[in-house]
Amino acid sequence: MINIQRLGLDEAKILIEGAELKAKDLNINVSIAVVDEEGYLIAFHRMDNARIISVETSINKAFTASVSMRPTRIYSDIAQPGKPAYGIQNMFNGRFTTLKGGLPIEIDGKVVGAIGVGGALSADQDEEIAKAGLEYLKRVLGFNVNIDI
Amino acid sequence: MINIQRLGLDEAKILIEGAELKAKDLNINVSIAVVDEEGYLIAFHRMDNARIISVETSINKAFTASVSMRPTRIYSDIAQPGKPAYGIQNMFNGRFTTLKGGLPIEIDGKVVGAIGVGGALSADQDEEIAKAGLEYLKRVLGFNVNIDI
Amino acid sequence: MINIQRLGLDEAKILIEGAELKAKDLNINVSIAVVDEEGYLIAFHRMDNARIISVETSINKAFTASVSMRPTRIYSDIAQPGKPAYGIQNMFNGRFTTLKGGLPIEIDGKVVGAIGVGGALSADQDEEIAKAGLEYLKRVLGFNVNIDI
Amino acid sequence: MINIQRLGLDEAKILIEGAELKAKDLNINVSIAVVDEEGYLIAFHRMDNARIISVETSINKAFTASVSMRPTRIYSDIAQPGKPAYGIQNMFNGRFTTLKGGLPIEIDGKVVGAIGVGGALSADQDEEIAKAGLEYLKRVLGFNVNIDI
Repeated sequence: MINIQRLGLDEAKILIEGAELKAKDLNINVSIAVVDEEGYLIAFHRMDNARIISVETSINKAFTASVSMRPTRIYSDIAQPGKPAYGIQNMFNGRFTTLKGGLPIEIDGKVVGAIGVGGALSADQDEEIAKAGLEYLKRVLGFNVNIDI
Repeated sequence: MINIQRLGLDEAKILIEGAELKAKDLNINVSIAVVDEEGYLIAFHRMDNARIISVETSINKAFTASVSMRPTRIYSDIAQPGKPAYGIQNMFNGRFTTLKGGLPIEIDGKVVGAIGVGGALSADQDEEIAKAGLEYLKRVLGFNVNIDI
Repeated sequence: MINIQRLGLDEAKILIEGAELKAKDLNINVSIAVVDEEGYLIAFHRMDNARIISVETSINKAFTASVSMRPTRIYSDIAQPGKPAYGIQNMFNGRFTTLKGGLPIEIDGKVVGAIGVGGALSADQDEEIAKAGLEYLKRVLGFNVNIDI
Repeated sequence: MINIQRLGLDEAKILIEGAELKAKDLNINVSIAVVDEEGYLIAFHRMDNARIISVETSINKAFTASVSMRPTRIYSDIAQPGKPAYGIQNMFNGRFTTLKGGLPIEIDGKVVGAIGVGGALSADQDEEIAKAGLEYLKRVLGFNVNIDI
């Protein structure tokens, strides 16, 4: 038998709140998705006037970070043509994404879910906002979140 | 040009809060999805320990109620074999659903979005929880919400 | 070699105009799609405030009427459970539809395209509006259109 | 609540007319699609003898320009291998496209829809024709359309 730690709705809301605060600081409207450790959606918020594409990208980024247990940033690199993971972006009917902005949520060394952000001015900014969610979770709840993932 | 009223994130959160309060009263864990007037997700919460199927059903119920401007309950009836809308459940690659539990959010006579609930003990209970969201929106924000839809 | 008569854009626009006039008479907002004799879209108009579902249903009804060379009304019957065409609604990934409201455009005994209407109050009304398109094409251009199809 | 301006059918027809006039000037047959601000089709015309591929490309270009609020030209660049948006072309089951020829319709600083053109001799020509639609909308209706988008 396996014992699993899974993010709950309360923590997901904190993650989203932290990301939203960052997005407001940056004066940008984004979508933020939080999924569990098997990639299923726990919570999602689309800020008013965010681009519609962000609904799709944020969810897929969170999904990808969860099922791979890695930041999607890694696939932005290793799934390029000629690189070892090239082709992985076709998995799950294309839901597996190479777009930066998805981060696994690792607490006490275990991935318990993931966060994905879409709709910012750049994929770097998406990741910055996702990371702000992790930092906020750490600060507000005192969890041992890996924020340098 | 057409002038449209669209539900914002703040209202979506109120709707979800109202539905969650009802679900807690009923001692059941559900997923609740709120979409805009063309079916795109605005907010989603999955209560802890809700069935995974509810992620899919709640989103599709909200989508269906929005794009059809009708409670999904109607399609539970008219999309049955032998009835006039039989076959409509194939539309949008099967995302259009005949499952009860999706309600359009009609404010001042205009559909501005929709709410969908999945994971309760019955589809009737799903709809009861969705309706509680509408009632809460009406009570908390004083909007002219059609709760007898 | 095969010589094909195919509906052109000018005729498609007349068909849509005729259907729109009827919809306005009936005080309803619909989507109207016209496809060629192989099911590819030639022209499409969505009237203001039509339900979004009509975008999908009108196109699929026209597609189905074209590729089957039959009114979709026929499949509303023969694709019911227990009937001989049951299952055909899965063809083309579910785009083949049993929803009434798609009519082939038969001129001089040859199917040259099809028209599909969605978004009216009933599938009967959808078909009535589609038929008005055929009648208008006959009247305005003097073509030998089969309006009793 | 959010107040949205959405393109209506009348404006969509003007956009298509402007694009068609340009295509005729250039002696090329194209498909032209106009979608609303969340990517749903409002109007579509395929000129006689246009390539069939243009049915798909024009609609997807318009969809992409709408949901991203950007000219698709931008993705022709930034979604290339090694660039930051690489992989975004998988979103929405591949409907999100990197093909040039889709332009958002921005009026008074707000995206109210998008136009997409396919089937010209080059993607540059597709965009030129789409742009002619924007210019025509501005000239004929006097709207404050951003034509340098």
